[in-house]
Amino acid sequence: MTNSGNHMTADEFRRHGRTVVDWIADYMQRVEELPVLSRSQPGEVQAALPSAPPDEGEPFDRILADLDEVVVPGLTHWQSPNFFGYFPANTSGPSILGELVSAGLGVQGMLWSTSPACTELETRVLDWVVDLLGLPERFRSDGPGGGVIQDSASSATLCALLAARHRTGGGDARQMTVYASEQAHSSVEKAARIAGFAYDAVRFVQTDAAFAMDPRALNDTVAADVRDGFTPCMVTATVGTTGSNAIDPVGEIARVCRDHETWLHVDAAMSGTAGVCPEFRWLHNGVEAADSYCFNPHKWMFTNFDCDCFYVADREPLVAALSILPEYLRNNATVSGEVVDYRDWQVPLGRRFRALKLWFVIRHYGVEGLRRHVRRHVELAQQFAQWVQDDPDWELAVDPPLNLVCLRHRAGDAVTEAVLQRANATGRMFVTHTRLDGRYVIRVSIGQTHTEQRHVEQAWCLLRDSAAAVLAEP
Amino acid sequence: MTNSGNHMTADEFRRHGRTVVDWIADYMQRVEELPVLSRSQPGEVQAALPSAPPDEGEPFDRILADLDEVVVPGLTHWQSPNFFGYFPANTSGPSILGELVSAGLGVQGMLWSTSPACTELETRVLDWVVDLLGLPERFRSDGPGGGVIQDSASSATLCALLAARHRTGGGDARQMTVYASEQAHSSVEKAARIAGFAYDAVRFVQTDAAFAMDPRALNDTVAADVRDGFTPCMVTATVGTTGSNAIDPVGEIARVCRDHETWLHVDAAMSGTAGVCPEFRWLHNGVEAADSYCFNPHKWMFTNFDCDCFYVADREPLVAALSILPEYLRNNATVSGEVVDYRDWQVPLGRRFRALKLWFVIRHYGVEGLRRHVRRHVELAQQFAQWVQDDPDWELAVDPPLNLVCLRHRAGDAVTEAVLQRANATGRMFVTHTRLDGRYVIRVSIGQTHTEQRHVEQAWCLLRDSAAAVLAEP
Repeated sequence: MTNSGNHMTADEFRRHGRTVVDWIADYMQRVEELPVLSRSQPGEVQAALPSAPPDEGEPFDRILADLDEVVVPGLTHWQSPNFFGYFPANTSGPSILGELVSAGLGVQGMLWSTSPACTELETRVLDWVVDLLGLPERFRSDGPGGGVIQDSASSATLCALLAARHRTGGGDARQMTVYASEQAHSSVEKAARIAGFAYDAVRFVQTDAAFAMDPRALNDTVAADVRDGFTPCMVTATVGTTGSNAIDPVGEIARVCRDHETWLHVDAAMSGTAGVCPEFRWLHNGVEAADSYCFNPHKWMFTNFDCDCFYVADREPLVAALSILPEYLRNNATVSGEVVDYRDWQVPLGRRFRALKLWFVIRHYGVEGLRRHVRRHVELAQQFAQWVQDDPDWELAVDPPLNLVCLRHRAGDAVTEAVLQRANATGRMFVTHTRLDGRYVIRVSIGQTHTEQRHVEQAWCLLRDSAAAVLAEP
Repeated sequence: MTNSGNHMTADEFRRHGRTVVDWIADYMQRVEELPVLSRSQPGEVQAALPSAPPDEGEPFDRILADLDEVVVPGLTHWQSPNFFGYFPANTSGPSILGELVSAGLGVQGMLWSTSPACTELETRVLDWVVDLLGLPERFRSDGPGGGVIQDSASSATLCALLAARHRTGGGDARQMTVYASEQAHSSVEKAARIAGFAYDAVRFVQTDAAFAMDPRALNDTVAADVRDGFTPCMVTATVGTTGSNAIDPVGEIARVCRDHETWLHVDAAMSGTAGVCPEFRWLHNGVEAADSYCFNPHKWMFTNFDCDCFYVADREPLVAALSILPEYLRNNATVSGEVVDYRDWQVPLGRRFRALKLWFVIRHYGVEGLRRHVRRHVELAQQFAQWVQDDPDWELAVDPPLNLVCLRHRAGDAVTEAVLQRANATGRMFVTHTRLDGRYVIRVSIGQTHTEQRHVEQAWCLLRDSAAAVLAEP
């Protein structure tokens, strides 16, 4: 059975498009029943796929059938309400449809002129987000600063570092140093490597009892580096570390940065979203002194990957670090200086219309809707933490500031790890781990779109049942 | 009129999803009638958008209405069959629906374990593409090499450079040099800047009469740099330059690279797709000696942005340059060494399921379908070139090897530029320009999915009519 290999007509697209929309709606309705962590073994999916591309086109229905037969069993279901691993990468109907419109329009926003709406909608929505999260006015586009959508916080951190390197003088990156807490995300080290810093250029600053950066330790480290002839280039403060959701004291870190004329980047990839609720805006205390800031709507704000909002207080060093204008991109609007060309704010040249999905999400939910859902996740996490505290067999590794609960069994690391493996093997929940102070910790990250009380209760039951089973083993 | 700010239910998603599918199908059917280059003025789209996010959620229909009223007039229509600017960024029904499935599943492929199918389908499809384009076997995943999807050729070039820098010894990038022809894409220079090379580290090698890199000039430049104490790190050969579609002589360049132990990266972003046709595989002569290669299905292979296929002959230096394994990402599969974790092959950590759309495209068209469409674009371009040659007022700037026609009016640069501006202002076509040998050249890039003979004929008529009008001006 083959098809013609002709282009899909608009009417065929209508028909197949409906089928795909229904397929996704069905997936949404059944994802809760699927084992969260894929049970696929290495090589299994590949073995189910032909070794060569088809000579003739295949009917669309057969491709969709393979989605069910080959692809779905090989998925770890990030959109399951029973997914509590890593950080969430949640999504929502309006976001998926925004992504669909973006794919359907197929415009390239590398330059303002290559689709003015792609640039201007992004600028406007990123200004909205400044309001939405209570971020400092200096990140708005109507002054020297502004925001842009990056694929990920990793890329945002890299761009921040490139701007910082430029502002520091564009000199030899191998004599420059970079600072982040020992709990910071691996993307800081990766960015420094990519940008040509020495392999040991990143200083991992000591943290306090809550795993937040100790600003005195930062100051001492920076001062020692200056004495030793290094040039401090950038400090990354993390608002919500991956390990334990620790919140670095941005205000105190900013004072150290100011004293040493060092770029301050704030990575709020996960927790920034909580800023939609006024009662959580303490998170952003001190951010008004930061040079750059990022958070990921694709983590906790119902916007599908990829969508990171990256802000700079001054766009000049960022653009200076990344702008090259070859003849074939020269155009009247760019030359006039009246417009923003976002290609100069990122690593790639091309860019798709990602602002659409964020615009769809914010308009669908409204500020109040977003607040309600974020509050609910935090409430569920706080309730989970209370259950842990009330259970003599378990303990919290840290007090959860928001929606991440870090816990361990009192019987020790081996039992905690065995409990995690056993609970994940049920397929009815998925959690991941980290180590804090060298001890094994289960992370329960609550932020999937459709996670409700009953899913959280089930997860807690499964963890306790798994512990009972592990402890009963000979 | 507000909505509840609740999550969109599966049934609401079905309903709104159908509306969006129909909206896109309607757009496909009317895009030909829209002015190709947006007539929006700077600030116009922003002014049509509220200055603050809505407090309460808005009905989906109102969001869609704003697509028509605010967004579409601000678009430059890349999917118009009358779009001949830059390089194409074409798309197709199966690709859009693949992207939709990816957004609907919302899985994260950063690690094999976070969705085995996301990794293994990508590996398999990238092996298919080796067959499809007639690429060397060494790029297949069953040896030391393999392929990965990047967002863009810019990122692929950056990753190639990072791997090359690592293989060159990971030493001081500021003493390393990078080579590309003076017609190469700006992404080479951008990658070198990002990776911490000196601002003047990129050597722009002389080109021949056809604007292809002169391998003797390359050899002389490399040898001089070695004498001066520099370490040659990477040469980028371009298969299809952005300016004029020039094809660098990869085989001869490879010999220079071998003599100097320099990484050879081949950037076939646009023209690689032509390799689907056996008669155009001469393009890839010499690629068997390359260390890395990339091309963009999102340019000419009916796959919506972003989708760049990036191959390495040896994945070890790439992974060594980019891998960092924090505790929170540690998992049994990674530790076993049996699987590929694609996060180590790219700049960001997170990654969406981009292989789906490429899989959908290859299966929908089949090898023969892709060949037919690519051949047709090349035929249309060759025909266009013949019209130019047959017209005494116009001349080709170069013989078009494939689907890009570079032409100029014999009355000189000012007239050629005025013709371009006038033709674009009609809204019935869109072309961009470059300069070759210092002279202004109109580029007619033929590769949009629905471009047919009549669109190309109309474009040629419009250029000639515009010339007549320009020359008739006082």
